[in-house]
Amino acid sequence: MAENECVFCKMVTGRIPVAKLYEDDDVLAFLDIGPISDGHTLVISKKHFEKIHDCPPELLAKIASHLGKIAKAVTEATNAQGYNVLCNNGRVAGQLVNHVHFHIIPRHSEDKLFANWPSYEYEKGKAEKIADKIKANL
Amino acid sequence: MAENECVFCKMVTGRIPVAKLYEDDDVLAFLDIGPISDGHTLVISKKHFEKIHDCPPELLAKIASHLGKIAKAVTEATNAQGYNVLCNNGRVAGQLVNHVHFHIIPRHSEDKLFANWPSYEYEKGKAEKIADKIKANL
Repeated sequence: MAENECVFCKMVTGRIPVAKLYEDDDVLAFLDIGPISDGHTLVISKKHFEKIHDCPPELLAKIASHLGKIAKAVTEATNAQGYNVLCNNGRVAGQLVNHVHFHIIPRHSEDKLFANWPSYEYEKGKAEKIADKIKANL
Repeated sequence: MAENECVFCKMVTGRIPVAKLYEDDDVLAFLDIGPISDGHTLVISKKHFEKIHDCPPELLAKIASHLGKIAKAVTEATNAQGYNVLCNNGRVAGQLVNHVHFHIIPRHSEDKLFANWPSYEYEKGKAEKIADKIKANL
């Protein structure tokens, strides 16, 4: 998607209004207009990068350095008991806007979000093989 | 939970073995032993902090600066089409180990993970009220 067509880029430049929570030279935080929980917040890079691995590490570090204080403020304001910080990368992972963004999702007991966590165990030797493959790519 | 009883602290000090992927002075990355997708990786602070908002921003920045390259290596090694980066904070949010950790979860089409995304719209004026509350806490 070209930058000038990206909905988050339009929010950064003010062409689309947002309920702004925090802003500095690199980072913008605002309420998701399609929340899955009241106070559901997006923290984005102002500059357009599609995915986390496209983002310069220094920029990712700047974004992350704000996550704690914003998450705390969101959690307190919504009387939540916890929160998820989630960044979806790729359509298959649920990324709907191809501009890197971190969701902060306030959580309450019995809200039934992300209830599906189908964890399993590796068969013997498989974890080591996968780890070797990953390390070869690092 | 005291640090000396924390399972992730034991992994950091080697008292519990892990399939290690990356390590430096501040950060450790290893395969989750209860994956929800092959290659499911955890990236943690070596020092014990419970939640993102407990973590010093500089440390959070250091952890985040490694997420891109690790996620790329995990995705390539598992032939995934995308990935989620997820940090659960609080039992209600699915945090099982009270030591801050980022999940990197490789994703494939039809894997049905995180399929539940019940987004809604705010009634008129509500987003502004919530945003004001959050800003008052920032």
